[in-house]
Amino acid sequence: MSQRSPLAPATFPTLPPIAGLEAAIGRAGFYKHERADVLIMRMPEGTRAAGVFTTNAVGSAPTDYAKQALAATRGGARALLVNAGCANSFTGPAGDAACRRACEAAGERIGVAAREVLPASTGVIGVVLDDAKIASMLPKMELAPVDWPSSAAAIMTTDTFPKGAGATCTIDGVAVNIAGIAKGSGMIAPDMATMLAFVFTDAALSAPILKTLLKAETETSFNSITVDGDRSTNDCVLLFATGQARVPPIADAKDARLDGFRTALSQVLRDLAIQIVRDGEGATKLVSVTVEGAVNDASAKRIARTICESPLVKTAIAGEDANWGRVVMAVGRSDQPVKRGMISVRFGDLWAACDGMVSAEYDEAAMSAYMRRDELEIGVVVGPGSGRATMHTCDLTKRYVEINGDYRS
Amino acid sequence: MSQRSPLAPATFPTLPPIAGLEAAIGRAGFYKHERADVLIMRMPEGTRAAGVFTTNAVGSAPTDYAKQALAATRGGARALLVNAGCANSFTGPAGDAACRRACEAAGERIGVAAREVLPASTGVIGVVLDDAKIASMLPKMELAPVDWPSSAAAIMTTDTFPKGAGATCTIDGVAVNIAGIAKGSGMIAPDMATMLAFVFTDAALSAPILKTLLKAETETSFNSITVDGDRSTNDCVLLFATGQARVPPIADAKDARLDGFRTALSQVLRDLAIQIVRDGEGATKLVSVTVEGAVNDASAKRIARTICESPLVKTAIAGEDANWGRVVMAVGRSDQPVKRGMISVRFGDLWAACDGMVSAEYDEAAMSAYMRRDELEIGVVVGPGSGRATMHTCDLTKRYVEINGDYRS
Repeated sequence: MSQRSPLAPATFPTLPPIAGLEAAIGRAGFYKHERADVLIMRMPEGTRAAGVFTTNAVGSAPTDYAKQALAATRGGARALLVNAGCANSFTGPAGDAACRRACEAAGERIGVAAREVLPASTGVIGVVLDDAKIASMLPKMELAPVDWPSSAAAIMTTDTFPKGAGATCTIDGVAVNIAGIAKGSGMIAPDMATMLAFVFTDAALSAPILKTLLKAETETSFNSITVDGDRSTNDCVLLFATGQARVPPIADAKDARLDGFRTALSQVLRDLAIQIVRDGEGATKLVSVTVEGAVNDASAKRIARTICESPLVKTAIAGEDANWGRVVMAVGRSDQPVKRGMISVRFGDLWAACDGMVSAEYDEAAMSAYMRRDELEIGVVVGPGSGRATMHTCDLTKRYVEINGDYRS
Repeated sequence: MSQRSPLAPATFPTLPPIAGLEAAIGRAGFYKHERADVLIMRMPEGTRAAGVFTTNAVGSAPTDYAKQALAATRGGARALLVNAGCANSFTGPAGDAACRRACEAAGERIGVAAREVLPASTGVIGVVLDDAKIASMLPKMELAPVDWPSSAAAIMTTDTFPKGAGATCTIDGVAVNIAGIAKGSGMIAPDMATMLAFVFTDAALSAPILKTLLKAETETSFNSITVDGDRSTNDCVLLFATGQARVPPIADAKDARLDGFRTALSQVLRDLAIQIVRDGEGATKLVSVTVEGAVNDASAKRIARTICESPLVKTAIAGEDANWGRVVMAVGRSDQPVKRGMISVRFGDLWAACDGMVSAEYDEAAMSAYMRRDELEIGVVVGPGSGRATMHTCDLTKRYVEINGDYRS
């Protein structure tokens, strides 16, 4: 495993317990070296689930299967089967069949129907999942209360640290817990980052409500981060509600009694998302980019994404250079409506550009000192509108090129 | 200046003479070190011109001025004033005024009206052009027959070699010459690449015809290359026709008598465009990506662009890795309609993926040997459509990160 990211949190957080949730980890051997590479989680009867999946048109067998399973059971999932080391993407009917067999075998082992098992895979593209490896390991796996750090570690590829986040809240006075794990933009030779996140709550919530909340909160968390703009074939975020915290039935995701839950869920998703950026390949800086004054939020997000994915902006940040000219260039190339004479750029509280020109108060020494920080905030005003968005990214370093290009040497 | 790109052509080509064209180069001092940084070219009365300009919404004073001048004179340009070292972009009214004064001074020196002078600038963003530097150098500049290599060198920023291309053809039996120079994706600390190209012909062609031809041929040349996806604020391509080769009047750009000229122009523009990719920062591989089977040409181009701008594809190429999985990922994230089961990927003539799976004939040794070449061709089939496009790019190396991030160290 690579050296731990300099942006990694000091420790794995203590996550609140999710009543009814069990897990088992095992080694199917998708990696040559000794490490866990399969995670199974089982949820009690009555669990409801929702998912958000990659929009990459190529997709993968496990995301196809999980989408179909969620539709067939109307969100009635009972288990999660995750493997690292093989993405089972671009594998045609053979990959679909292998995925199905793995879910059948896992379901049989833990006593749930195959269509109640949601699969997720991460790793090499173009290699059919060797489901026999999973099947032969299943007898050795024993469900037990969840060990979060080990579970998060079992789904890593070249992530440099396991990622977890949790929160507590109440729904109509009932205490509710949320816990989640994620894996991120690690790279596995010869393939690409795959972002997986699994979040659990003990709250009794319906699948449609889970889906509505997950979709909305994914937009401002996982969909607001980018390491290199390369969207994986296997990305997915799954949210499970075990229903052990008997909250009163709630029919509408907009119900005010869900406000606390929504906030807590948002916090968990954002925490996990930002941990993924902290583990971006070669990252040495965590950067938030906030765009204001756009014609609407979607436009602001497109501008923020263009800035976050600009190689020139990202290399400048790696070089600790407050290169606001490149930020301005990225705003201009986002193909969004902007008012040139109102464009302003700040790094932290230091204004570099104001109203279409270099800022009168530009102070090179103060700026250089700011740029040496690990965590940077770039603020951009692009016009008089009310559109606003924040995205998170990391810098682009030689280490990124090394990780993704040099592995043959 | 950096070491010459390993992809640079062996020599500067011999360009055909353009009757009536004169040039002067000088040093205004936009750089601390000794080098020419200003180029003036004068064309005879009756010259017609057309331009294609950056779509970056931020733009720059010189591109604004040139667009307005071309509109005001209906393509009646007589001179070109280019400086390297200062882009005069994001400089507000002060930048506009400086650009106007520079054109006035240059026009006065060479005996043409200010509005007949087309300016172009490349270099640092956010710094107002110091037009006094240009004015004070003008008396020392003397027009003479064009020295192409020196002219091409005067407009370079951190380009590692001067770029020129020429062609000859006939229009309705009359011999016609075309010659052009360009500068590319060099980087000037602390700023961004600026792509400038100036092409000249002695043919007597109207401004509307020049514009139609230039626009069409730019689409498949300069608009079909990408180094890092960061579109500059100052990009422009200008085409001048001095009219000394007295071809018969042609009213329609579709006139068959222009076929030879169109082909020759296309050849010059593509040659210059590819030279720019050859000089991409840190480039060690020249890569052409051809997408076929898309729903239309525009869709094919978007897919090709997504592949060409994918950091994961580009770093894999730098690592001489035929990572077709990343190519497939990029196809999938292009948000274009594709048929997953028909996606096929080849490197040169070697098929890596066929019809939605790894190719049965995949040969790792042959593939590795192919990937060690300097010039690579990636072909992708995405469906049954007739849409087709080719784009050119280079690899993403540590040197790119160094050039764009490390200059402070």
